[in-house]
Amino acid sequence: MTHAAGAPGSPPAGRAKLADVAALAGVSVGTASKALNGAGRMRPETRQRVLDAVAELGFRPNQHAQSLHTGRSWTVGLMTTDGIGRFSTPVLLGAEDALGAGKISVLLCDTRGDAIREQHHLRNLVDRRVDGIIVTGRRTDPRPPLTGITGLESVPVVYALSPSTDPADTSVTSDDRGGARLAVEHLLSAGRTRIAHVTGPEHHAAARDRARHGLEHLEGAGFGLSTGRVHFGEWSEAWGRRAADAVLRTAPDTDAFFCGNDQIARGVADTLRERGVTVPEDIAIVGYDNWDTMALASRPPLTTIDMNLAEIGRIAALRLLEAIDEGLAPGAHTVPCRLVVREST
Amino acid sequence: MTHAAGAPGSPPAGRAKLADVAALAGVSVGTASKALNGAGRMRPETRQRVLDAVAELGFRPNQHAQSLHTGRSWTVGLMTTDGIGRFSTPVLLGAEDALGAGKISVLLCDTRGDAIREQHHLRNLVDRRVDGIIVTGRRTDPRPPLTGITGLESVPVVYALSPSTDPADTSVTSDDRGGARLAVEHLLSAGRTRIAHVTGPEHHAAARDRARHGLEHLEGAGFGLSTGRVHFGEWSEAWGRRAADAVLRTAPDTDAFFCGNDQIARGVADTLRERGVTVPEDIAIVGYDNWDTMALASRPPLTTIDMNLAEIGRIAALRLLEAIDEGLAPGAHTVPCRLVVREST
Repeated sequence: MTHAAGAPGSPPAGRAKLADVAALAGVSVGTASKALNGAGRMRPETRQRVLDAVAELGFRPNQHAQSLHTGRSWTVGLMTTDGIGRFSTPVLLGAEDALGAGKISVLLCDTRGDAIREQHHLRNLVDRRVDGIIVTGRRTDPRPPLTGITGLESVPVVYALSPSTDPADTSVTSDDRGGARLAVEHLLSAGRTRIAHVTGPEHHAAARDRARHGLEHLEGAGFGLSTGRVHFGEWSEAWGRRAADAVLRTAPDTDAFFCGNDQIARGVADTLRERGVTVPEDIAIVGYDNWDTMALASRPPLTTIDMNLAEIGRIAALRLLEAIDEGLAPGAHTVPCRLVVREST
Repeated sequence: MTHAAGAPGSPPAGRAKLADVAALAGVSVGTASKALNGAGRMRPETRQRVLDAVAELGFRPNQHAQSLHTGRSWTVGLMTTDGIGRFSTPVLLGAEDALGAGKISVLLCDTRGDAIREQHHLRNLVDRRVDGIIVTGRRTDPRPPLTGITGLESVPVVYALSPSTDPADTSVTSDDRGGARLAVEHLLSAGRTRIAHVTGPEHHAAARDRARHGLEHLEGAGFGLSTGRVHFGEWSEAWGRRAADAVLRTAPDTDAFFCGNDQIARGVADTLRERGVTVPEDIAIVGYDNWDTMALASRPPLTTIDMNLAEIGRIAALRLLEAIDEGLAPGAHTVPCRLVVREST
């Protein structure tokens, strides 16, 4: 912040106007405006006199006037399709952090997965001449690109967490392949080779991708799943409890569970404890998400994969800032996951 | 939406300008502008010609120009001190829902409880001439009012969930008194009179208020706490588990637990199950928050108090809209809680 408004020694309350700055600097309002916008030619001393007057008066320009002048609104739309926000909230906050550190403000729009709300918000964002838009949602499944609003074609858009179905768009997503590999590698390195995989619904990309890549890595090391198949179900503790029972029955030599999320992993841990199985000595467990409420409350606390959601938001914001200045670099960018080791392995 | 931009039959892509509208309507640009802003006197037929041209061309005005003209930015700042967002997210989304339905957009600022970030965001919001600000946080403890930025004194501010310490400010908070009363009344009406209360840290207003009001109501009905005192601790499952053990030891005739949040209640439920105590037959449990992940995953699912956080956000937004039009109505407004009955009672 270069202006001293509100600081000790600054003029009393009441906003200084550009005319006040011009009067104090002894220049016309037009010259003061040009000096502030860095536009037009003038002597350095003149520009400095205007800047000195700005500092002395604690003047802060009207950003609407600035926007008309520069054609930039210094705002970015953050659109989420996720009313609940478990996944999109950290992405939003990561983006807000990267954008808000500068002079860019973030316009929040929640579409709740509703196409009419999406169109309403998009129209509003285009009318406000946002410099760009970040779109995020709760699922990792690709989503159709934003469309249908005149003027949108000139606004750069970055998709975060939920990529666009159009490969010409710019998307920043989680590296589920690397995440599944980290989980399986960790279990293999601990000597576990009879691994069961319990996960969410098969129609969710997150469930399918983690299962496929986990299995690929396991087979690459010369092993298979202890139960011979992936257990698709729900993203819930109750499913984790039921599935663990089924695995203990059908493949009692299982020595590890890799679970599609932390809720499932917690349910597995509860069933194992109640069946007298010791975790991690008898059976190890790895979850996914590093949702601290779940992972830390689990008995024992869960080893898990962190998707770095805030980093996804931050990188989406940086891509968007690049796009605003230099144009969009199309394609998908993946953010690596990290393994968080706790007592369940 | 009255404009037909992007709809079938509208003109091809490319934004219409005000000059295009004026030309089509056969008026000057100044007259077209006046017609759109509802300003100045003109014949109704003239205004209608301009509006017809707007519709035909799919013209949408530049909102920065509008803002300079009307002195309103049609934006509201939503400031949260809550980086994680368990509590502030529903408040934010409730406010966004109430504001976004109209033409008001929401500028999101996350201060992360950091005074320097708060000043940075406030300065930005004032520079953007926001029509008002909603402040929210994760705790129900009063917070100092926003201050320190020139120009802020003319911006209406509503505090949501975390009230302002200044009674002259406008705050919308949860009715913890009514919530505690609902919980205790529900247990009494089920014939439970030997109630233990396990809650969070005593330095949190939410813990103190729920304990005080719950006890008041219990004493008003002629009863006391089964253990003779409130069990202050942490907002965690681990604390709920430990506290339940202590209560079973020191007051084995306890027939119900009223817990300060759902995590504690879930911990209590786990300990009771593991000690062979049947819920709700032997001991009933009421939680607080209606955090569905916790309340539904608990065995059995929890009866709990819902603070209606989205409603707090919505009412804060409505108060702010009133304030923008008619000035602030100072004072604290509380939003009632509701009882959600599940299998733990």
